[in-house]
Amino acid sequence: MKNITITGFRSIPPFAMGLVRDLRIRWALEEAGFAYDHHPIEVEARNAPENRAFHPFGMVPAFEGDGRRLFETGAILLRLAQDSEALAPTDRDGREQMTAWMFAALNSVEPAVQNVGTLDTLLAGEPWAAQARPTMVQMAEYRLGQLADWLESREYLTGRFTVADILMATVLRILRHTDIVAGFPSLAAYLARCEARPAFQKALADQIAGYAAAEAA
Amino acid sequence: MKNITITGFRSIPPFAMGLVRDLRIRWALEEAGFAYDHHPIEVEARNAPENRAFHPFGMVPAFEGDGRRLFETGAILLRLAQDSEALAPTDRDGREQMTAWMFAALNSVEPAVQNVGTLDTLLAGEPWAAQARPTMVQMAEYRLGQLADWLESREYLTGRFTVADILMATVLRILRHTDIVAGFPSLAAYLARCEARPAFQKALADQIAGYAAAEAA
Repeated sequence: MKNITITGFRSIPPFAMGLVRDLRIRWALEEAGFAYDHHPIEVEARNAPENRAFHPFGMVPAFEGDGRRLFETGAILLRLAQDSEALAPTDRDGREQMTAWMFAALNSVEPAVQNVGTLDTLLAGEPWAAQARPTMVQMAEYRLGQLADWLESREYLTGRFTVADILMATVLRILRHTDIVAGFPSLAAYLARCEARPAFQKALADQIAGYAAAEAA
Repeated sequence: MKNITITGFRSIPPFAMGLVRDLRIRWALEEAGFAYDHHPIEVEARNAPENRAFHPFGMVPAFEGDGRRLFETGAILLRLAQDSEALAPTDRDGREQMTAWMFAALNSVEPAVQNVGTLDTLLAGEPWAAQARPTMVQMAEYRLGQLADWLESREYLTGRFTVADILMATVLRILRHTDIVAGFPSLAAYLARCEARPAFQKALADQIAGYAAAEAA
């Protein structure tokens, strides 16, 4: 794939560094060995008409490759997976299981996990936040316990590394300010295994370097 | 596709009738004209080993077709879409946009919407629920406002009916106990358009009839 551009934020608060979702696409592009341009936008400009035309929900990343545009990290990763065996198996059953786990990461696991992340950051000042937290943590731990069972006997979600692992690992990273993942040894080991991949390290370093450059400018 | 079986719950409380996610698959199967068997399980048995082997998160629906199993409504619908032009366009760009909107429904819209749904049902007795509700509603309305902008000039999400509309419409239905969707005329019209489809009506009637039969048994 050629002429790849992804959007991200130019500058963000420290708590969000390393969590913004362009990291997912940067990681996949490093695994696949595809060169890309990163187009940073201001957080305050995310709902400006030119970004809404690129991403209907005013978020990042939006993606362009081979002259075609796409939004939603799940859809972008599924498209990249079609072009690289580093990202996905080639057999039909393997691809279907990968797709199932992509949706599982984004719909069965992330919402419960993100609720804890949002409560501890954007909503931390709400008068009900402290009281609600134990329930939110319990709901996240319920899902994580089921995921931990699955990973007890597996190195990656579907037996080999795929874009589903990029999604699941970055979902688990949302809880990095807590000891919740550490409470599930198979999950902690899985996350460490994913984060140890050179492509992840390169993607993370590039994302952080971008923020640092914006800070210095 | 042949020998299709999906799981659902045998019996559920009234507030959840017409919301359980096997409705999404029933609807798609009706649109495609594919016959299927519905295999009801007890809510209390959802985490029993035989269901966890079918669905790692102990949820419904799980799916089997042509001898292959799959879980996650998004992944099941994406697979069905490959076999029916009633569910998806055949051109590459159309399919990519459909996929983007499937992930948008499940990851950008549903989490905010489901938080209101969960707060008003499972968490309604929590001492902080009433205080948290305005914030939760505001977060849902933020996303719904962006979606309403998109649908202002469109009959369906990508110009024609696809499985992405099945997901988005059933996500909006989670708020049926509120007047939130009614506050966005383009969304209310879109939902009414989707719900008026004969395949939706048939799927909903069959789901409700199943609960009634279990009740009578």
